[in-house]
Amino acid sequence: MGRVTRRVRRTRLDVSTGDRVDRTDTVAVEEPLEIRVGNEPVTTTMRTPGDDFDLAIGHLLTEAMLHSAAEVGTLMHCTDLDADGSPTFNVVEVTLAPGAVLHRPARERTGPMSSACGVCGSATIDAVRTSSRYAVADDAVGVAPRVLAGLPEAMRARQAVFDRTGGVHAAGLATPDGELVVVREDVGRHNAVDKVVGAAARERELPFSGTVLVVSARASFEIVQKASVAGIPVVVAVGAASSLAVDLAARAGITLVAFARPPHLGVYSRPDRLLGSA
Amino acid sequence: MGRVTRRVRRTRLDVSTGDRVDRTDTVAVEEPLEIRVGNEPVTTTMRTPGDDFDLAIGHLLTEAMLHSAAEVGTLMHCTDLDADGSPTFNVVEVTLAPGAVLHRPARERTGPMSSACGVCGSATIDAVRTSSRYAVADDAVGVAPRVLAGLPEAMRARQAVFDRTGGVHAAGLATPDGELVVVREDVGRHNAVDKVVGAAARERELPFSGTVLVVSARASFEIVQKASVAGIPVVVAVGAASSLAVDLAARAGITLVAFARPPHLGVYSRPDRLLGSA
Repeated sequence: MGRVTRRVRRTRLDVSTGDRVDRTDTVAVEEPLEIRVGNEPVTTTMRTPGDDFDLAIGHLLTEAMLHSAAEVGTLMHCTDLDADGSPTFNVVEVTLAPGAVLHRPARERTGPMSSACGVCGSATIDAVRTSSRYAVADDAVGVAPRVLAGLPEAMRARQAVFDRTGGVHAAGLATPDGELVVVREDVGRHNAVDKVVGAAARERELPFSGTVLVVSARASFEIVQKASVAGIPVVVAVGAASSLAVDLAARAGITLVAFARPPHLGVYSRPDRLLGSA
Repeated sequence: MGRVTRRVRRTRLDVSTGDRVDRTDTVAVEEPLEIRVGNEPVTTTMRTPGDDFDLAIGHLLTEAMLHSAAEVGTLMHCTDLDADGSPTFNVVEVTLAPGAVLHRPARERTGPMSSACGVCGSATIDAVRTSSRYAVADDAVGVAPRVLAGLPEAMRARQAVFDRTGGVHAAGLATPDGELVVVREDVGRHNAVDKVVGAAARERELPFSGTVLVVSARASFEIVQKASVAGIPVVVAVGAASSLAVDLAARAGITLVAFARPPHLGVYSRPDRLLGSA
C-alpha cells in the first residue's frame, strides 16, 4: 500500500522576527494512478494513495463507463519498482466480469474531431443527463436541515489525513439520519468522491437512492455530475457552488446545498427535500 | 465575452431558527472551454469565462506544447449559439505562426498503450524535467521574506470575482519587489495559472526568470509543473503543498513556499533565495 502522508523537511520562517526553524512537516502524498481496463488505459489521475480499488470502481461508475460494481471481475495493482526499489502501486488493472461492457465516453468514442463548433454548458449537461440512468428527480427522500448542517463537522472529525497535513479534500456518503456510511480523503476532490462511490458500490447497487453526498470543498459541475450518475439525490458542499453545478442540479432534480456553515445552509435547488419546507 | 458571474436563486436556511429567506446569490460561472490548434482539439477544461485567449496561450506554454507566444498566429472564438440563442464563446481556435510546431504530450504521442507497468512520481517528475527547457535552478533571484508574505493579501485585494462569489481561485505573477504584474481568477486553479502565464507571455518571452508565482490554493504537482516549464523560480501558495509538489520543486530547483500565512512562511525547497538566509 502506498503511503498516504510523508515527512518532508521544511523551514518555518517568521517574517516579523526573522526566526527560522528547520523541522520536518507532514504532507499529503500525491502520486499518479493509471486505471486500465482490459489492458487499455482509461485515465490517469493525481491522487493520494490508498483505496485505489475503490477509486477505480468509483471512477468507472461515476463516469458512466460501468453501471454496477458486479461488472468488475478482478482488480490488481501492478507492482513495478520505483527508483528506490519500492513497489509503486500506481497502476490498477481492471478486468471485466463475463458479459460486462465498458462504455467509453461519447466524446472519446466519436473521435477527436467534431464538426460542430459548439461546446457549451447546456450540451455538457445534456451529455450527463444522457449517461445518467436513474430518475434522481423522483427520489422522495426527506432530510432534516439540522442533519445536513451537522454533516460537514461529522465528516471533519473523521478526516485523519487532513488533521496531519491540512492538504486534502474529503467526501462522505450519509443516510438521511445523518449516519456517515463512508468517508474518504484525497488531494483531488473528484477522487475523494470516486473513492466514496466505489466503496459504497461494493455494499449496494446503484442508484444510491435516499443518500446524501457531502464534500469538504466547493460544488463544481464534476461533483454534481458524479452524484447524478450515481443516483444520489442530495449534495452538500462546505464551499461555494459554480453556475454549472447549480444548472445541472436543477435539471437533474438534485437538492444542492452549498456554503453549509452552521447555522446556515444555502439551498440552490429542490428545497422540497428539506423537512419542514413550506 | 462570456459572463464571469451569474445571479441564481437560493434559499438561505437558518437551521437554529428555521428561518428561510429566498434571495438571489452570485455564483462563479463555470463553463467548458475547448482549445483547438489547427482544427484539432487539444484539451477541454472547465473554466470561468474571460481571458480565454490568455488561457489558451498559457495552457499551450505551461504544458510545453509551445515555447513562445510568438508561435501563435491567430486566436479566434468560435461563436456558436447556445439553446437561448446567445453566443457560447466556448471554443478557442488557435492557428500557429508559420514554422511553429505543436509538441503534443509524449504520452499522447506514443499512443494509448504503454508496455511498462510503471507510472510513478519520479517518472512523472522526469517527464516534466524533460519538457522544461529552462535552468530554473540557476536563477539567482533573491526575495525578501516580507515581500513573499505580503503577496497573498495583495492578490486577495484584486480578486473581484472571489469577493462576489467566494468560489474561485486566483493566481498572480509578481516581481521580486512584490509588484503583482498580473492577477487572474478561475474556478480551476490550474486555469488561473495558465491565464497568468498566457497574459505575461504576451509581454515578455519565457523563461519568466526572477519572478514569483502566487496561488490562492494548495500547491499541487500541476502548479509546480507549470512554474517549472515557464521558468518561474519561486512559487508561493496559501494552502498546503503535496508530496509530489515538494519533490518536483526540489528536483527542479524551485523555491516552494506553502502555508504562506503571515507572519509565517513554510519553505520546502531552495530557501537560499530568501534574502537574509544563513
